Amino acid sequence: MVDAGLAGVVAAETRLSHVDGERGELIIGAFRVGDLAPRATFEEVTWLLWHGDLPTRRELTTFTAALAAERALPDGALPLLRQCAAGAPNTVAAPMDALRIAAGTISLASARPEAIVARVPTIVAAFWRLGCGLEPLAPRADLDHAANFLYMLSGEAPDPERTRALQTYLNTAIDHGLNASTFTCRVITSTGSDLVSAVVGAIGALKGPLHGGAPGPALDMVFEIGEAARAEAVLRRKLDAGEKLMGFGHRVYRVRDPRADVLAAAAERMYARAGDQAFYQLARRVETEALRLLEEYKPGRRLQTNVEFYTALVLHGLGFDVPLFTPTFAIARVSGWIAHAIEQQRANRIIRPQADYVGPRDRTWVPLEQRGD
Amino acid sequence: MVDAGLAGVVAAETRLSHVDGERGELIIGAFRVGDLAPRATFEEVTWLLWHGDLPTRRELTTFTAALAAERALPDGALPLLRQCAAGAPNTVAAPMDALRIAAGTISLASARPEAIVARVPTIVAAFWRLGCGLEPLAPRADLDHAANFLYMLSGEAPDPERTRALQTYLNTAIDHGLNASTFTCRVITSTGSDLVSAVVGAIGALKGPLHGGAPGPALDMVFEIGEAARAEAVLRRKLDAGEKLMGFGHRVYRVRDPRADVLAAAAERMYARAGDQAFYQLARRVETEALRLLEEYKPGRRLQTNVEFYTALVLHGLGFDVPLFTPTFAIARVSGWIAHAIEQQRANRIIRPQADYVGPRDRTWVPLEQRGD
Repeated sequence: MVDAGLAGVVAAETRLSHVDGERGELIIGAFRVGDLAPRATFEEVTWLLWHGDLPTRRELTTFTAALAAERALPDGALPLLRQCAAGAPNTVAAPMDALRIAAGTISLASARPEAIVARVPTIVAAFWRLGCGLEPLAPRADLDHAANFLYMLSGEAPDPERTRALQTYLNTAIDHGLNASTFTCRVITSTGSDLVSAVVGAIGALKGPLHGGAPGPALDMVFEIGEAARAEAVLRRKLDAGEKLMGFGHRVYRVRDPRADVLAAAAERMYARAGDQAFYQLARRVETEALRLLEEYKPGRRLQTNVEFYTALVLHGLGFDVPLFTPTFAIARVSGWIAHAIEQQRANRIIRPQADYVGPRDRTWVPLEQRGD
Repeated sequence: MVDAGLAGVVAAETRLSHVDGERGELIIGAFRVGDLAPRATFEEVTWLLWHGDLPTRRELTTFTAALAAERALPDGALPLLRQCAAGAPNTVAAPMDALRIAAGTISLASARPEAIVARVPTIVAAFWRLGCGLEPLAPRADLDHAANFLYMLSGEAPDPERTRALQTYLNTAIDHGLNASTFTCRVITSTGSDLVSAVVGAIGALKGPLHGGAPGPALDMVFEIGEAARAEAVLRRKLDAGEKLMGFGHRVYRVRDPRADVLAAAAERMYARAGDQAFYQLARRVETEALRLLEEYKPGRRLQTNVEFYTALVLHGLGFDVPLFTPTFAIARVSGWIAHAIEQQRANRIIRPQADYVGPRDRTWVPLEQRGD
């Protein structure tokens, strides 16, 4: 019996996060995501996953400073990123390739967990600016992790509402059970390999369109609709044509994704502060209409707004283009990957399943000259 | 129930290789390893795994030329390798880090399967020479895959016996069921990610000392013994002290590892041709004595010479230092990884097992100022 995809196979015990799709619950470090994500800094949630509890004030000060001190690009990364930016078109895949390539070089300097987490945003921002024809900016040690990333993208210190919105997003995305990239990280770690190898493998997995690598369509639908009055007509046309509504329905959650409300609240505050409520209100109207029509077209399927819809709304509000979405996901998830690697190291057994051989067994050697041309 | 290590869980169907530990059988592309490995070139076995049958003469000519044409270092790899060689001591781990880092840049040029397989030996040889204070050598398109690797290490075109011995080793190591690196490659591929990402993740897994990253001790024991007359005394002392005899016993094979005889024969021919039978005969004498004493000390355990013992003998005979062993393993296994990636793509389902959450669920938020110092 082949367990294709290993669905339902329990491959690890964890104290990091718990996904309950039936109840619509996501626990991160023993907190409900809704209690934790909008309140904590990304540094606090990273510490929580790595150490099992929230940091004290002194621990947080030291940890925040340690991350800030490790932000400089790893040796050799900048020439590589210039090559990546010169060679590849600025597609969805290219920024993740650039991140994987440059992250690999972290081994050439400090490969402490803090250094890995601290450098991922620097790599992402540097490549992004190069792709826009701009010079990368040096990180600023006086800004926290989220604020500094926004600064390294734009060159402007962000206002607190934008930093808070990004922190809330990063906190919602930091860990989510044994997804494919986290599992990759644990398999690599299970051989006794190092953290950089595990994180680089995980970045490669996150790139895949079936995992983190195909965001954006939810936002495209909102743009296509353009104004609230057109929502019903456009959505009906899609549903009549048998199209899926992007941003609705999730493999795991049968009720509303618990991250959706957290992100909706973060988006609302941020758009309100920016004085540009129009796009937010359009998106909410599209959501309401989509949920109503999904119930009409697919009664009983319980299709709900998924996290991608509100992630897109938050990141768009921050001014991020779609190709930045997956690398920003990686900026969050790298803390979770490292937490899983540490957990794997503590109770390690090499992860090595079986394959079922279904090929023939009885070929005999035929010398080249007898094989024909 | 946690399936720690996923031992016994069947995660994939494969037509690539089959390991039968009870019968001491290894099937590669439907051939017994003993029929295939000593006869085929590495190009032929790579083709066999990728296409399901041995190549015709014309297919082999084209494929051999395609590999030869893709051997140049990927763009940007040489400066990176210089940094790797300048920064890190020449330890067992460093060459695998260098390989992982430089292999990541293959995305910057052609990432065809042929290009990946062709470039791994160039990277390994370039880094090796840099570590020895020598300039890397350009590949030679008139030599086959194995001979060119030997040339790029030493600067001399190897004699046919040495090339044959390396080919035989590479063929025995090209695939071995769902080991941890091959599984990593399939997990990354299962997200829809690319071949370079999958191979880079697999290199990271192979680096781990529980997988491919701790060779050498079998050879150390032969060196320690030094002359045949001392074998029994040294081995008895180790066994009396409760030490494991490195190079004996295998997790899977309960009878003799089928690769051991293939490699023993390859080693014998190569050492005979080189006119230096002494080390080979010492190793055989150590093996005989070790097997006799293991049966005496651990009756019924059926401990057999494992593949590491003869791998070390072959690679030592080729003049390779121990830190080159794992990278040379990667040169072989990369063809198997790519074959598994292709197989995974053909019948894909994202690989995503479950975790069992064993942490608390009921923490409530405490603001920083109430957490103490």
